[in-house]
Amino acid sequence: MRYAILGTGAAGRTLAAKLASLGHEVAVGTRDPRATLARAGDDSLGNPPFGRWLAERPQVSLLAFADASEFGDTVVNATAGNVSLHALEAAGRDRLAGKIVIDVANPLDFSQGMPPVLSPVNTDSLGERIQRAFPESKVVKTLNTMNARIMVEPSRVPGAHNVFVSGDDDGAKKGVTQLLVSFGWPEESVIDLGDITSARGAEMVLPIWLRLWGALGHTDFNFHVQGSRTRA
Amino acid sequence: MRYAILGTGAAGRTLAAKLASLGHEVAVGTRDPRATLARAGDDSLGNPPFGRWLAERPQVSLLAFADASEFGDTVVNATAGNVSLHALEAAGRDRLAGKIVIDVANPLDFSQGMPPVLSPVNTDSLGERIQRAFPESKVVKTLNTMNARIMVEPSRVPGAHNVFVSGDDDGAKKGVTQLLVSFGWPEESVIDLGDITSARGAEMVLPIWLRLWGALGHTDFNFHVQGSRTRA
Repeated sequence: MRYAILGTGAAGRTLAAKLASLGHEVAVGTRDPRATLARAGDDSLGNPPFGRWLAERPQVSLLAFADASEFGDTVVNATAGNVSLHALEAAGRDRLAGKIVIDVANPLDFSQGMPPVLSPVNTDSLGERIQRAFPESKVVKTLNTMNARIMVEPSRVPGAHNVFVSGDDDGAKKGVTQLLVSFGWPEESVIDLGDITSARGAEMVLPIWLRLWGALGHTDFNFHVQGSRTRA
Repeated sequence: MRYAILGTGAAGRTLAAKLASLGHEVAVGTRDPRATLARAGDDSLGNPPFGRWLAERPQVSLLAFADASEFGDTVVNATAGNVSLHALEAAGRDRLAGKIVIDVANPLDFSQGMPPVLSPVNTDSLGERIQRAFPESKVVKTLNTMNARIMVEPSRVPGAHNVFVSGDDDGAKKGVTQLLVSFGWPEESVIDLGDITSARGAEMVLPIWLRLWGALGHTDFNFHVQGSRTRA
């Protein structure tokens, strides 16, 4: 399979590396590849320069959003939530049509300081906005409720824990579930929350996730819905 | 100890019955006790008439909000979230001063239909509003992330799972933690999220809780933060 990962941050890099390690062809999409490669210092979240990361992964290519979107059979939105719609517009509606768009982003708004707030929230979600803006794509919200390393290596967290999927297309959710299984998620750990409006619930987990990070002092944790398998 | 439970719904009844069974003196508070006792049919959520419930529990009394608040050393807000501030005003600022106020309510707004939305949300919470309105009380948000039966009988859900506490007063959170332990919660299952602003995180769990109810078809589930004990 060919995957396009939009976004060069921790989530994008982690997903791209995992997909490449599984033998998939992977292109990372960015607004301006030359500018991305020219950056010398760590980014604002402490990630080392993307060029250095890419140099160690010859099987991953870096392309402009539109070219990455053209390349991928499946497109992963791993951009910052507040720029995701712009990035996907740049990726191109026609090039996203008919494809599964896996949205792992959270619409965190840091403009008012810490902690960030969600925007949209409550009566809308980023997942829904993407689905509305790209009605011919099959948007599946998933993996946004955990640290990026756990996304592709669930065994980092001991014991059983869950990953959620939200989306309007059952076939797309089934495909994404198989991708999650290939990442190491037991099939029974994947909980289908329902249609894309259930992305509100998944995104609204972020405020307690951020507080748990503060309370626990680390991000190697994840939610397990105890009792989820006690009845049919 | 003397407890006042404000609210006659499922959460209030469940908490009152549990506290009485533990040997505490319990008064349930309502706006108009005569009107509460006069109701003959099930309420809108399917709870049987309160009078019938009360008749089977002679150790529990029913009082007006102010009288219940006067009676209780600790006051539990188990009213519907959209009327909680009014109920607490009726309970009386002076009678709540210096006391622990345990807030288990969720600010669910059903006025726009199903599913309900949270109001306030994201940049505020019901827990914070109560703390601001009653600065001389020690507000602790807890237990709002699960079905009422699990609140007082955590073993209904198999395996380890968590209950959260949020509040500005460490002594109050310690006291509430001991109360939770008396309900059957292992002490290590109680996670202190931080100050009262962390109630936003706990309240914003509701949208995914509601979706999980739909996905699982039952409410005997609860969240476990896997990895919460892997590091100090």
